[in-house]
Amino acid sequence: MSARFVSVDTYDIRFPTSRELDGSDAMNPDPDYSAAYVVLRTSEGDHEGHGFAFTIGRGNEVQTAAIAALRPYLAGREVDEVLGDLGGFWRELVHDSQLRWLGPEKGVMHMAVSAVVNALWDLKAKRAGLPLWQLLARMTPEELVALVDFRYLTDALTPDEALGILRAAQPGRAAREQQILADGYPAYTTSPGWLGYDDEKLRRLCREAVDAGFTQIKLKVGADLSDDLRRMRIAREVCGPDIRIAVDANQRWDVPVAIEWVRALAPYDVWWVEEPTSPDDVVGHAAIARGIAPIKVATGEHVQNRVVFKQLLQLDAVSYVQLDAARVAGVNENIAILLLAAKFGRPVCPHAGGVGLCELVQHLSMFDYVAVSGEMQDRIIEYVDHLHEHFIDPVRVENGRYLAPLAPGFSAAMHPASLSSYAFPDGPVWT
Amino acid sequence: MSARFVSVDTYDIRFPTSRELDGSDAMNPDPDYSAAYVVLRTSEGDHEGHGFAFTIGRGNEVQTAAIAALRPYLAGREVDEVLGDLGGFWRELVHDSQLRWLGPEKGVMHMAVSAVVNALWDLKAKRAGLPLWQLLARMTPEELVALVDFRYLTDALTPDEALGILRAAQPGRAAREQQILADGYPAYTTSPGWLGYDDEKLRRLCREAVDAGFTQIKLKVGADLSDDLRRMRIAREVCGPDIRIAVDANQRWDVPVAIEWVRALAPYDVWWVEEPTSPDDVVGHAAIARGIAPIKVATGEHVQNRVVFKQLLQLDAVSYVQLDAARVAGVNENIAILLLAAKFGRPVCPHAGGVGLCELVQHLSMFDYVAVSGEMQDRIIEYVDHLHEHFIDPVRVENGRYLAPLAPGFSAAMHPASLSSYAFPDGPVWT
Repeated sequence: MSARFVSVDTYDIRFPTSRELDGSDAMNPDPDYSAAYVVLRTSEGDHEGHGFAFTIGRGNEVQTAAIAALRPYLAGREVDEVLGDLGGFWRELVHDSQLRWLGPEKGVMHMAVSAVVNALWDLKAKRAGLPLWQLLARMTPEELVALVDFRYLTDALTPDEALGILRAAQPGRAAREQQILADGYPAYTTSPGWLGYDDEKLRRLCREAVDAGFTQIKLKVGADLSDDLRRMRIAREVCGPDIRIAVDANQRWDVPVAIEWVRALAPYDVWWVEEPTSPDDVVGHAAIARGIAPIKVATGEHVQNRVVFKQLLQLDAVSYVQLDAARVAGVNENIAILLLAAKFGRPVCPHAGGVGLCELVQHLSMFDYVAVSGEMQDRIIEYVDHLHEHFIDPVRVENGRYLAPLAPGFSAAMHPASLSSYAFPDGPVWT
Repeated sequence: MSARFVSVDTYDIRFPTSRELDGSDAMNPDPDYSAAYVVLRTSEGDHEGHGFAFTIGRGNEVQTAAIAALRPYLAGREVDEVLGDLGGFWRELVHDSQLRWLGPEKGVMHMAVSAVVNALWDLKAKRAGLPLWQLLARMTPEELVALVDFRYLTDALTPDEALGILRAAQPGRAAREQQILADGYPAYTTSPGWLGYDDEKLRRLCREAVDAGFTQIKLKVGADLSDDLRRMRIAREVCGPDIRIAVDANQRWDVPVAIEWVRALAPYDVWWVEEPTSPDDVVGHAAIARGIAPIKVATGEHVQNRVVFKQLLQLDAVSYVQLDAARVAGVNENIAILLLAAKFGRPVCPHAGGVGLCELVQHLSMFDYVAVSGEMQDRIIEYVDHLHEHFIDPVRVENGRYLAPLAPGFSAAMHPASLSSYAFPDGPVWT
């Protein structure tokens, strides 16, 4: 008897991070880092698939309801059939003729698809006995291309071009896999730079970051220019000239203000400016990129789907592609984004932090290195030292590098105790 | 004692339209037209504010949950305070520091804001004893500008420029208001052209549309080119050369296919092509506009917010701006879109149909004529003859024109009997 999906259980999990001002920036002064979490269980019972959408508090119940709306797609379905054609299953979910009206391909419904798709990849990798990055890195170019929906992409990237990119990366796959296992992947840290921290804490955390081996840090900016100039000066003083300092405005500015503000920060040597304006404004990002050159633009954590990434690349509006593991529709769409970035020759530097995002994106960057771009130059994964203790297979960052995850799966599963303690609104942390 | 909001009640309302193939197109083969509906009640009790987000079936419960997530913003709040500063209240909702993560400003959460904001305008107009279009058309330029959030717009439209546009339209307001009351506003009909209809029905409905006084119709296209060529030929034969025929692809094509397909239809004299590709692809729309000239591009029903409309206008990617009453965040954001269209000199031709969208958009177009663009040339409102019987103040379309709504409010309220009969899943229509 072939195994079937028997349940799709959802959980509204919230961490009261606003009490400590961790995660505070110019647009998000008081986030309660949260996960709309899903567990897929099957009749064989050996493995579960875990996935989640990340939110920052209020509305997490809406996100959880959106995941539940996808339940009919899995309940009772054969596990082998679904996992054997995750490209086809992705299309079923994303192109549901009624649900797509709620996006299409954006916001709450798209993040719900992300949670379910990522949970399926977690399950598939566990059944294969491999960490996700290795599972993906050992698939053939043809198998990988079949996972991607090229709808709305073919003016920039065709399936044949994607196949060409993946085939070109086949030589050396095994050596790069060994290199990842031996040396891991570069990380940068955002921990020093939250807006809610005072100068003394900023100074101390910058020093600790350098001592811990990080070669890049990031500061939140955008609330007040004189504060930003002072904080940037402090960070540059403490770090010295060789550490890369990126800044992150979290969408705070209009286009003309962004250009002016970043130019004011330029004397402190800004590595990139992140989310200078609305994530929907590809034309605006292009204007900013021209206006602040040679400083580079990075964006992506709120970019809703592959179609917007395509345009950012077409317009030369972004230099660093900050894909997010749970904003777009999961692993499949992120493969599309990795391929687009490779086509346009732009480094992917994933967004992480939040709840479990570090755990997820490490797999995508390591896969990118082994099987897609084949490059590590200027590639780096965000690292924030928050909430990893709630995960069964937490990231390991040493000497400024992510060590390769070794456990089978997508590193997405939280401890059962965390799921019950932080359940909203009835868990003990909230009552 | 000043009045306060005492309840924000939500309703999941669905009409089983898929049983008749009304509303079928290349992307939406089987919609069940639905409304995530909200009623605001106050302690004074005289008037209620009604609003809704339109969806096409599955997921309407998610949309309804998103509206409920906004309840804390109103419960217990003073009515005069909220209605006296709807610009400020809009900002509170849209920029909620935690909820905005679920968009930002797009999809399910943004449509939820739309429902609540439109319900507040319904209430405000009822209390003023005016239909919404007249209430808006009598506000001062300064009051109107205060309703708009210019964040992310100032590279294309500043508050001062908006004020200039509105002041330039002040002379003649009274005369244009009288003209609307006397002659109404032009309409076109989509009823003949649904993909699910056979050729005989298409022929009959085209003839009926011309006989009813419409000067423009619209056909759904995009599933099969030879079918489209045949249907376009039939429509042109029946309508003759003087009726404008627009086509609507409902996002079916990639950029190169869109150009090729529309060129093939050109011999039948296409007035506009609507939604040729992803609504997120402003760069793609610009390429299509260049590729199919002199045929024009129309889009907007799925355009998520004012930032995307801004770019479509900046890139010369759209000739007809099809704002939607309930996709962006309600009246306030649509005023921003009307102002952007006026700045760039593009006609606004609203999307309608669905559930109650005709009822809402007529107010916006009439306001546009009286107080924003001051123009009616090439402006026209979509009309679909569906589901109007469920509304207390339904649209009246005669001789191809919308007659001015006269009842106080936003024409948004459904009959209580419809709210109970079509409640999902427990109403009698569904059980």
